[in-house]
Amino acid sequence: MALMNHSFELAARPVGLPKRTDWNFKETPVREPGADELLVKIIYISLDPAMRGWMNESRSYVPPVGIGEVMRALALGRVIESRNPKFAAGEFVYGALGVQEYAVSNGSGLTKVVPGAAPLSVYLGALGMTGMTAYFGLLEVGRPQPGETVVVSGAAGAVGSVAGQIAKIKECHVVGIAGSAEKCDYVVKELGFDAAINYKTEDVRKSLQNLCPKGIIVYFDNVGGDILDAVLTQLARGARIVICGAISQYNNTTRMKGPSNYMSLLVNRASMTGMLVFDYAARFPEAAREMAKWMAEGKLKSREQIVEGLQTFPDTFLKLFAGENTGKLILKVAEP
Amino acid sequence: MALMNHSFELAARPVGLPKRTDWNFKETPVREPGADELLVKIIYISLDPAMRGWMNESRSYVPPVGIGEVMRALALGRVIESRNPKFAAGEFVYGALGVQEYAVSNGSGLTKVVPGAAPLSVYLGALGMTGMTAYFGLLEVGRPQPGETVVVSGAAGAVGSVAGQIAKIKECHVVGIAGSAEKCDYVVKELGFDAAINYKTEDVRKSLQNLCPKGIIVYFDNVGGDILDAVLTQLARGARIVICGAISQYNNTTRMKGPSNYMSLLVNRASMTGMLVFDYAARFPEAAREMAKWMAEGKLKSREQIVEGLQTFPDTFLKLFAGENTGKLILKVAEP
Repeated sequence: MALMNHSFELAARPVGLPKRTDWNFKETPVREPGADELLVKIIYISLDPAMRGWMNESRSYVPPVGIGEVMRALALGRVIESRNPKFAAGEFVYGALGVQEYAVSNGSGLTKVVPGAAPLSVYLGALGMTGMTAYFGLLEVGRPQPGETVVVSGAAGAVGSVAGQIAKIKECHVVGIAGSAEKCDYVVKELGFDAAINYKTEDVRKSLQNLCPKGIIVYFDNVGGDILDAVLTQLARGARIVICGAISQYNNTTRMKGPSNYMSLLVNRASMTGMLVFDYAARFPEAAREMAKWMAEGKLKSREQIVEGLQTFPDTFLKLFAGENTGKLILKVAEP
Repeated sequence: MALMNHSFELAARPVGLPKRTDWNFKETPVREPGADELLVKIIYISLDPAMRGWMNESRSYVPPVGIGEVMRALALGRVIESRNPKFAAGEFVYGALGVQEYAVSNGSGLTKVVPGAAPLSVYLGALGMTGMTAYFGLLEVGRPQPGETVVVSGAAGAVGSVAGQIAKIKECHVVGIAGSAEKCDYVVKELGFDAAINYKTEDVRKSLQNLCPKGIIVYFDNVGGDILDAVLTQLARGARIVICGAISQYNNTTRMKGPSNYMSLLVNRASMTGMLVFDYAARFPEAAREMAKWMAEGKLKSREQIVEGLQTFPDTFLKLFAGENTGKLILKVAEP
């Protein structure tokens, strides 16, 4: 009997928050891998804010997901059949395998995972693209020095929680911004941030002023919008803003809100720089080794929030935009 | 009989475009210079968009002009009396001498001008702060390489016209953006820009797309607003935006318009960096020598638009915001 695949295909370009009907749930037979191809049984699917951008038609750093194509997502799975000499059945791999149960791949863009240092799910979290984004965004673009004040938004989220911990490892004064008292507690008490601001109940600008008396030297931005504007009012001279994301704006039905206070860049001779993790691919192994070492030493913690069931994808994905996840949001579609 | 000074003092913080009544015109006796002070008879006053910012109460890179204080402005004049051993009567100096006829100074922040290389007014233009702003903003922050595409807004203005010419000297492909057919003609035919866009009659985004087929690598921004947003849609990977000013936004009565398309910084791994000329003060002499050499070789042209009469100040200043000046706008208050 043929192996059946289940997948979510993009059905429509969302307006605002994606709806269930923006995808079609499909059942199709799994295709036999051809020459040089391999078949992967997906275990974990990484749910990332960037996926929302891939659903739009506009030009970006990758082409948009086409209507009728499997929704793009990073995922981790086990090779169950391989006609590609570089991969063997039983190995674990991750890459842009999509929101589905099985993927046939020619191997390009796939990375092998050798589990052992951490549970498999961590390879989509701190030891995966999420961790790499935090590592290179903070260290290569933000370049904080010991003692400098680093502010991270989306601080309890996948990337922000890692970026803030790396800043602590680098001996910075680290202030997180997050959307609930629980998240603020988490980043301070569990992750060791120096302080956290609950943007839903506090005046972010005033809290930043209190918590960053010398001004902000590095801001790692995952959210954009009003929080970015508040941070801009509290920059120190020579500040560096890392633009990693703008989750507050991804589901706008009107035009994106630009940072009204951007002239603070001039006043403070500051910079705002965009980063994409893929540019650092050649250095991923080196960074992953360092991250694994920090994790083994207990200096870096990874938390994954794992939701079971491929069918829950449309609802689970929305947790990202409702601020309902702490740490890395992962969809589990099969047992490891 | 006592020498009389005439000056414009700030009377009120403007809302929107400054009005005549935002200043008081005052007549007061000139104070005798005290120990270590000197008295300057002002000849030329530099009119700059930045002066609008100094009239606001908000925190900036210099304190706001106080109500009742002489309006701050760069100016150039002749020392007519000196009790400061570093300056002698008859010498020419420039600095923040204010919108007035006579200034008493302790000499701090004053630079001596040795005329000869160019008419005196050029020392407020291409050979003064204006030229230094263009030079260091373009070369130190923009860092264009030969063959790269450089776009300059406010291209017929004081700073933009110099920035574009320096980019041509550095063998770049230079596109200017300006507000009239005459200004576009000026920058292309007289200053040697490769092309110019009239933002009042053209679709800036489409024109940029046509004129910058490889995308924009360096953008020298003097204007902000919709033009900055249009440029953001046409960046090349690794683009560098120099934030030198945002004249389109200085007289807003509502909040400043932030660049809605700033996530193009992420897509293109681009940066947006603010600059202030004063940070490069130690290197002004070196830069001024190079600029004077380019001018002597005919590679760099300076145009000053000189309006006579201190009393015209409130109206003349507004020419900056109405786009009525080409080149450096200067108020002449005495014969050289």
